[in-house]
Amino acid sequence: MTLPDIPALDRAAEPGLRARLDGKAKPPGALGRVEDLAVRLALMTGREDPVIDRCRLLIFAGDHGLTAEGVSSYPSEVTAAMVATFLAGRATANAFAAAVGAEVRVVDAGVDADLAPHPALIDAKVRRGARNAAVEPALTCGEVETALARGAQIAAGAAEAADVIAIGEMGIGNSAAAALVVHRLAPAPLADCVGAGAGHDAAGLARKAAVLRRAAARTAAAAPLDVLAEFAGLEIAMMAGAVLGAAGRRRPVLVDGFIASAAALAAIRLVPAAADYCIFAHRSAERGHDILLRSLGAEPLLDLGLRLGEGSGALLALPLLRAAARLLTDVASLDDVIAGRL
Amino acid sequence: MTLPDIPALDRAAEPGLRARLDGKAKPPGALGRVEDLAVRLALMTGREDPVIDRCRLLIFAGDHGLTAEGVSSYPSEVTAAMVATFLAGRATANAFAAAVGAEVRVVDAGVDADLAPHPALIDAKVRRGARNAAVEPALTCGEVETALARGAQIAAGAAEAADVIAIGEMGIGNSAAAALVVHRLAPAPLADCVGAGAGHDAAGLARKAAVLRRAAARTAAAAPLDVLAEFAGLEIAMMAGAVLGAAGRRRPVLVDGFIASAAALAAIRLVPAAADYCIFAHRSAERGHDILLRSLGAEPLLDLGLRLGEGSGALLALPLLRAAARLLTDVASLDDVIAGRL
Repeated sequence: MTLPDIPALDRAAEPGLRARLDGKAKPPGALGRVEDLAVRLALMTGREDPVIDRCRLLIFAGDHGLTAEGVSSYPSEVTAAMVATFLAGRATANAFAAAVGAEVRVVDAGVDADLAPHPALIDAKVRRGARNAAVEPALTCGEVETALARGAQIAAGAAEAADVIAIGEMGIGNSAAAALVVHRLAPAPLADCVGAGAGHDAAGLARKAAVLRRAAARTAAAAPLDVLAEFAGLEIAMMAGAVLGAAGRRRPVLVDGFIASAAALAAIRLVPAAADYCIFAHRSAERGHDILLRSLGAEPLLDLGLRLGEGSGALLALPLLRAAARLLTDVASLDDVIAGRL
Repeated sequence: MTLPDIPALDRAAEPGLRARLDGKAKPPGALGRVEDLAVRLALMTGREDPVIDRCRLLIFAGDHGLTAEGVSSYPSEVTAAMVATFLAGRATANAFAAAVGAEVRVVDAGVDADLAPHPALIDAKVRRGARNAAVEPALTCGEVETALARGAQIAAGAAEAADVIAIGEMGIGNSAAAALVVHRLAPAPLADCVGAGAGHDAAGLARKAAVLRRAAARTAAAAPLDVLAEFAGLEIAMMAGAVLGAAGRRRPVLVDGFIASAAALAAIRLVPAAADYCIFAHRSAERGHDILLRSLGAEPLLDLGLRLGEGSGALLALPLLRAAARLLTDVASLDDVIAGRL
């Protein structure tokens, strides 16, 4: 399949950007990681004065045959119920989007229900739910390719309307699928990738881990497309495509928690240059996120014990991106302050 | 002097608020520290459905006689130059305020210059700069009381126009003054409270530490009003008053970095109930902030290596408060989702 071309960053521009920041009316380096973020945003967008204002959150939704094995404490039907909640504007993602000023679109990547059309719903369904990865490959290679291509196309569309694209997800069972993807692609021991997801007691967590050991034992797949086919849900594969599509349009991708990061990991393993466009919003409370982030050398912006998904953590980090960009565009130089040119 | 009455929080309401959050359409606790913040905002405002939208940032500015001892790498004149930059809308605080949507007001608490009137400038000058604390008390007790009272009044005025009040500062030399305040009021060893401020090499830091040891040796003052008189700048004392005034009106106070936190510490030592209304925005890179925060048992929201002041870090944390409040006000209950009442 053809993956999007991702423009290389012009690393030669970095010293000039650092010098511009150091020449601003503030002590050099006083904004810490926000200065690093400003430099990254300038390099991603290819603009000395990056404009980071409009944000579109894409929430990719899909179901998982793995839920038949009891990997989640919630039934699959919750996926469609939460899609309805997003579309009604009543979920956490909507509340946070209203708080920070972002648009929300829900992408039906593979919900196991027929969804009525809605202006905020993008119908990109590949099939009704991924298969049960404990007993067979979750997706065919063709389904993975379709999901990647649709994700890239959706992100390219979002790039027309937004300066930054946030990615989040909803899918009962998807922390189980993501654990398998991270296990193979980080790579990391499976046990380090399995967490409580939406909530498990010790017995539930042990059951989930046992199911995932069974799924992992079924195949030695380690190449990114194969890993997505064996284990991923459609929302994970489509998010990976969205990362590639956004990066291909030089749009910063604001990555939410564990599952969105697993998709970003897959995208980066497919096209390493995608890493330059990924901003990891927060360190999730979900076990496995930290090892995933370390495998990418990524330091997230926030650490608030979040473990919801939906793009909620990405939205909370969005204002940091806007602020960082404005360091470059809005703040006077020290020379101008000294000369009284304000 | 009369300090503002600060309403006690209705702690009995907390279990009900937690139950409401647990009943929302999300796994219980999945928003981590944002849920704790939502509870605190409800308790502070005395509303089950707190509205946290409008924010006013008050930047308190003042000069310091201590600068005569070489405690800062910048000359005192930079204070007034930065005030002009705030008023022109060209400083980092303005850029971040634009990014997150907040109003900025500059308070002349004690700048050592005559400042022209400006719609965004509040003239509350007590005197032109604090005295040199290395050789004499920085302020008289009367000056401290005036600064506290004006700060409280300014915050009460801001409370009419804003749901949350952010506090920040500008004052060359004020990390030195704050170090002395924290040393006595945390309390903590002086050496643990002295940092590089706006920037020092090893020799500069050693000089600053030596000056502060001299100042500390001059007096054994340990009571909050005495400590403010001996060591504080006017912007620090006035910020302490603002914390009390805002808390007295049940307004959450979003506290910026090391110096603003030193003022909050003083306010809390004056009226312990003020602690219930302080939200510490971030962990500054300035040495001394961490020990201060620990002395208050406070865990800040962000940790981004910031060390600017101006309220910049407070502004970056503001969207988290807005989002937290909207958890309570905007998100549907799980019961409503299950029943299809959206």
